Amino acid sequence: MNDKKFQRRLEGLIEDRHSGASELARLGLEVAAQCAQSAGAQKTIELRHYLAECAKALAAARPSMSILKNLMEEWKESLEVLPDDVEEARVKAAETALNLAEQSTRASFEAAALTSALVGNNKTIITHSFSSTVLEVFHLLKNRGVQAIVPESRPLCEGADLAERLSQWDIPATYITDAQVGLFAAHADIAIVGADTLLADGSAINKAGTLLLAMAAHAEEVPFYVCCESCKLWPQKEPPALEEMSPAELGTSPWPGVSVSNIYFDVTPAHLITGWCTERGAPDPEIGDRE
Amino acid sequence: MNDKKFQRRLEGLIEDRHSGASELARLGLEVAAQCAQSAGAQKTIELRHYLAECAKALAAARPSMSILKNLMEEWKESLEVLPDDVEEARVKAAETALNLAEQSTRASFEAAALTSALVGNNKTIITHSFSSTVLEVFHLLKNRGVQAIVPESRPLCEGADLAERLSQWDIPATYITDAQVGLFAAHADIAIVGADTLLADGSAINKAGTLLLAMAAHAEEVPFYVCCESCKLWPQKEPPALEEMSPAELGTSPWPGVSVSNIYFDVTPAHLITGWCTERGAPDPEIGDRE
Repeated sequence: MNDKKFQRRLEGLIEDRHSGASELARLGLEVAAQCAQSAGAQKTIELRHYLAECAKALAAARPSMSILKNLMEEWKESLEVLPDDVEEARVKAAETALNLAEQSTRASFEAAALTSALVGNNKTIITHSFSSTVLEVFHLLKNRGVQAIVPESRPLCEGADLAERLSQWDIPATYITDAQVGLFAAHADIAIVGADTLLADGSAINKAGTLLLAMAAHAEEVPFYVCCESCKLWPQKEPPALEEMSPAELGTSPWPGVSVSNIYFDVTPAHLITGWCTERGAPDPEIGDRE
Repeated sequence: MNDKKFQRRLEGLIEDRHSGASELARLGLEVAAQCAQSAGAQKTIELRHYLAECAKALAAARPSMSILKNLMEEWKESLEVLPDDVEEARVKAAETALNLAEQSTRASFEAAALTSALVGNNKTIITHSFSSTVLEVFHLLKNRGVQAIVPESRPLCEGADLAERLSQWDIPATYITDAQVGLFAAHADIAIVGADTLLADGSAINKAGTLLLAMAAHAEEVPFYVCCESCKLWPQKEPPALEEMSPAELGTSPWPGVSVSNIYFDVTPAHLITGWCTERGAPDPEIGDRE
């Protein structure tokens, strides 16, 4: 992979508005593997240096998504123990990246499986945005009487992608504006969302609007679960920045003196979260059941 | 006004998605006045009967908007004491309708004036949807350092109309998706919304999304006021139906098995409302300050 191609893939990750954090992290690891395979380095030390730079750039692509940072960090650490032979090192680095992606897929599936067991039969789930892990929860429950309430999730309405998938699986769903979440929370048995990042204080960063769903669920005494891989836990004390995207996504004409804001994520505090469902358990045994 | 023209005006009121409840009530009274002026009745008793039917149809045009029902009811009662001379009766009925509309305009302005005094200088107001009374609050505060946070208010984004007006008045504003309300409530000093209907238990019916704003304001300890004319108070014990509009307004393709919901209004409970600001006072002395 030459520098130009790498930049294109990197920009693809930065611009991607439809993939969730887990999918983006796995795409990032695929790019990392391709970097390893095609790097022009003649010595392992050169390869390590080049790949460490790639990892750093990939990790920084989406600052609100801890999993990308965490998995890139883990991959970067594995570069320290590459074999001396540069060809072997190349193969090893690529393999490690793909293994990490596979572990992530497996962890995500396990989190979804534990969540689906928690939900049980004949339940109505309200969610927000499009999470590949929550999609897997619906897939696992599709012959078990599950129903869905799906907010559109402005500005780009990835809720529509979820509604389309649920329709293909014959899962009855109600599609609503984000503004109707307060009206519909009471119709759900359980609220389940994915996460871009989990924070050590028990809060969760997810697509803007998740906080409002959590408030509405709380008011209606509907349990609210965050379902994702445990490696979305943010390693630092200072929480990550909440990414802001182009105001043009709101599709408005510009008015003088009016700023259009498009912050993509919000933080749902721990006291509004019934529990995290990760591959380690549901609710997460490390955090305990906050219900 | 012949029956066909009346039906057209009535349908105009039913279909109108951009005017607030007060504006629609005043439009309804204008239609009523025109009915009085142009009715073919030869005797006052015929005129009264015809106008009472018009009033009934107009009152039912927008079931979630108490003011339309209340003002039409008041007008209908006034028909009981029309003069015996049919031409005098015609003039009187039209005059009464236009007077009621004018009283409504005045009450709305007074509510806005009391609210603007309550807000004071150099404050940031967060609102939801487009209320002509809240617009008047901004107008009164435009040289007093007011700033605005304006959610788009899906599906038809009447927040954009408000942003445009604020821009024309040089009021600095931030335009956001409804999903960002949880992020922006903390940036406001005060939340002010209009209402389609006030209920006797202290709650308020307004455009869907208002409830979520109230929850977010409550969480951030931002005072939340409902500003409107007192004649929006619903007279019956049973609350009105929440109007549902065409799913097509969400602009999605239809998916088999997915129902698209477009409920236009939600109910904000009294415990999330700091106070009502009506022409009778701010907060409403009849209800008391619930702060």
